[in-house]
Amino acid sequence: MLKINETRLLSDIEELARIGATADGGVSRPALTAVDLEARRWFQRKVAEAGLAYAQDGAGNQSAILHSDPPGAKRILAGSHLDSVPNGGRYDGSLGVLVALEALRTLKDHDIVPALTLEALNFTDEESAIMGLMGSKAVAGRLSMADYGRSRVDAAELSRRFAAAGITRESMLTATRDDVLAWVELHIEQGTRLESAGLDIGVVDAIVGIRSLHVTFRGEAAHAGTMPMNQRRDALWGAASFVLRARRHVMDNYSPGVCNVGMIQAAPGAFNIVPAEVACALEFRHGSDAEMDAMEVDLLRLLEECAAEFDLSVSQQATPPVIPARMNESVMGAIERAADNLGLSHERMLSFAGHDTQNMAAIAPAAMYFVPSVKGISHNPNELTTDGDCVKGANLMLHTLLELTTAFA
Amino acid sequence: MLKINETRLLSDIEELARIGATADGGVSRPALTAVDLEARRWFQRKVAEAGLAYAQDGAGNQSAILHSDPPGAKRILAGSHLDSVPNGGRYDGSLGVLVALEALRTLKDHDIVPALTLEALNFTDEESAIMGLMGSKAVAGRLSMADYGRSRVDAAELSRRFAAAGITRESMLTATRDDVLAWVELHIEQGTRLESAGLDIGVVDAIVGIRSLHVTFRGEAAHAGTMPMNQRRDALWGAASFVLRARRHVMDNYSPGVCNVGMIQAAPGAFNIVPAEVACALEFRHGSDAEMDAMEVDLLRLLEECAAEFDLSVSQQATPPVIPARMNESVMGAIERAADNLGLSHERMLSFAGHDTQNMAAIAPAAMYFVPSVKGISHNPNELTTDGDCVKGANLMLHTLLELTTAFA
Repeated sequence: MLKINETRLLSDIEELARIGATADGGVSRPALTAVDLEARRWFQRKVAEAGLAYAQDGAGNQSAILHSDPPGAKRILAGSHLDSVPNGGRYDGSLGVLVALEALRTLKDHDIVPALTLEALNFTDEESAIMGLMGSKAVAGRLSMADYGRSRVDAAELSRRFAAAGITRESMLTATRDDVLAWVELHIEQGTRLESAGLDIGVVDAIVGIRSLHVTFRGEAAHAGTMPMNQRRDALWGAASFVLRARRHVMDNYSPGVCNVGMIQAAPGAFNIVPAEVACALEFRHGSDAEMDAMEVDLLRLLEECAAEFDLSVSQQATPPVIPARMNESVMGAIERAADNLGLSHERMLSFAGHDTQNMAAIAPAAMYFVPSVKGISHNPNELTTDGDCVKGANLMLHTLLELTTAFA
Repeated sequence: MLKINETRLLSDIEELARIGATADGGVSRPALTAVDLEARRWFQRKVAEAGLAYAQDGAGNQSAILHSDPPGAKRILAGSHLDSVPNGGRYDGSLGVLVALEALRTLKDHDIVPALTLEALNFTDEESAIMGLMGSKAVAGRLSMADYGRSRVDAAELSRRFAAAGITRESMLTATRDDVLAWVELHIEQGTRLESAGLDIGVVDAIVGIRSLHVTFRGEAAHAGTMPMNQRRDALWGAASFVLRARRHVMDNYSPGVCNVGMIQAAPGAFNIVPAEVACALEFRHGSDAEMDAMEVDLLRLLEECAAEFDLSVSQQATPPVIPARMNESVMGAIERAADNLGLSHERMLSFAGHDTQNMAAIAPAAMYFVPSVKGISHNPNELTTDGDCVKGANLMLHTLLELTTAFA
């Protein structure tokens, strides 16, 4: 049975991890920063060394291409992203790009000309250094002016990063595609379900929806000595109460749905001033859109209750939601057949993280699969998928692509 | 009965408030900035116009002096500070300097030669634009190299400001005094106890101690979707629990002692990352050092309990404490006799804010008294003490100084 080149794959993982490496073994490679640009040049070099065709679209998405003979108009795509969160790990995204590249190289090594043209992709800005899932949104035609408005970098910095990658706001609009027969993505699980169950592979049947709110509690600044505690309107008291009550409520009523308060900041922000304002960032996720609606009603009510408890006001501003995405049965079937042929154990499960696959699912049959993350650690320098699991995941990519060329030919 | 010149005092308050005036009626006069230097020149001019002697010591502290005859070696001092917090009000500090000056002018107007030399002071940098309570620390010999290390302006800016005021690091050391028989300070209350109780005057019997800790809760960063909530080590959960439990515990067990968490920041700080670290700033105050010790033990235990509850670690780093300062019974008695003679209602109370008096208490019998702050508002452009209360406070200063010349002659 055809197998990928393990040594080459593992060596690629090591090499790539040196680009943007942090002292603690992780990587910090936010989209289109100098280190991400270096990773992109590295990818392009690897494609050339493999004798594969290379292309970059108007959104900066990079492709390695192995043409069928004759080259058809439509293609099977696979991949993920090379950018990382700040101080993240070396597997999130990167492994999905590397296994797709390795699958194409393996076919090329064996002079196998696939029945359909295959393409291994690196999507731009999956991790929200700029706007998040930017490359796949552009491909799916889902990028809006509002996405630019939500950019996490200012206009000048956005222009600098775009220019460095050879893209423009206009070119972004040319990245839409109608040549995609099917899409598949390998990603690390970023959770513990595979590890706990002793499984090799998780076949994702839906990607959860995500809703995010900027929340601001407002009280009144006061001297932290002279204002008696029972007369304070301390915005942090309301925020702290919400953090704990939201945690309890979601765990008790919406599991496996989750919520997180990932940012918090008190103003004016001094030892001796009672906080007048506390801004925080709330996010919650669930596989069902109906349950998301119910969670939102409950969390908004909790915000009001926590504000009222301490004589505060509270306001919130939603960012655009991510709708739960169902995966395609044919693509899931191809993954499962390939896994069975390789002797890999697998189960279907939800993805609690957002992925480029949710955009690809809007324009083509799409699915994705997980390989185990040790202890579920992710977005963290200690993120780890064992070499053995990387190799299993890569062989599964190779054979899934072959299954897909049969299924979609 | 001798009274101060109301018109002159109120006119001085207006004039002084124009120096560094903000659009919303407050003043912004950080120590030794251009506007503070202008206020200092204004003070020197007023002293000259009144025919009082003027002096500036090595710490930039300014004095108006009314000599006894013959001029004795020892003196009674009164005053406060002309500098303000950024965007502060017009009464905090300034009123205490103006009433001391007005008391001396009134005696001069009536050709009253006091039994002891009287001095009205403006202390440099009370409000921490540079290091806080700088002038009175220098007078009390409490200034250390560590204070320079904690300076809020860099070395170059410090040199510029010192030069502009005609002082140096060396001259600062010459400001210590051994000629002080007694010290008294008028200050606005910056709280609501006088207003609530309908009292004219609060005689401070102790200035609270202040202890401040930088606290850091540490858990583990994780993906906010994929990591099940019951497996997270979210540092914000511990911090939120501490904010609420510390509030409850201090209110229930240490009132009128107070605590505040005035700064908080989660890291890495993203919607989709479980907080690995939360840094916050904790401060607590009490009038008794023994109670401060007990509060600290309790709060440190609470930190550990809140960390343990969510499988976190916690560490803290103390900044130099302020020790509670007891006021002198003879000086408090002089204030109370003068208030009784003027028909002013008064009660003893704690000062929850730090003041120059805490340093003067280290080298001489010292006390201070409060006049009411409307709604307790302070460090804010809306800070207000009514004209009537300013006049009452000034007459009380005049007669307290006369009482002190008798008591300490």
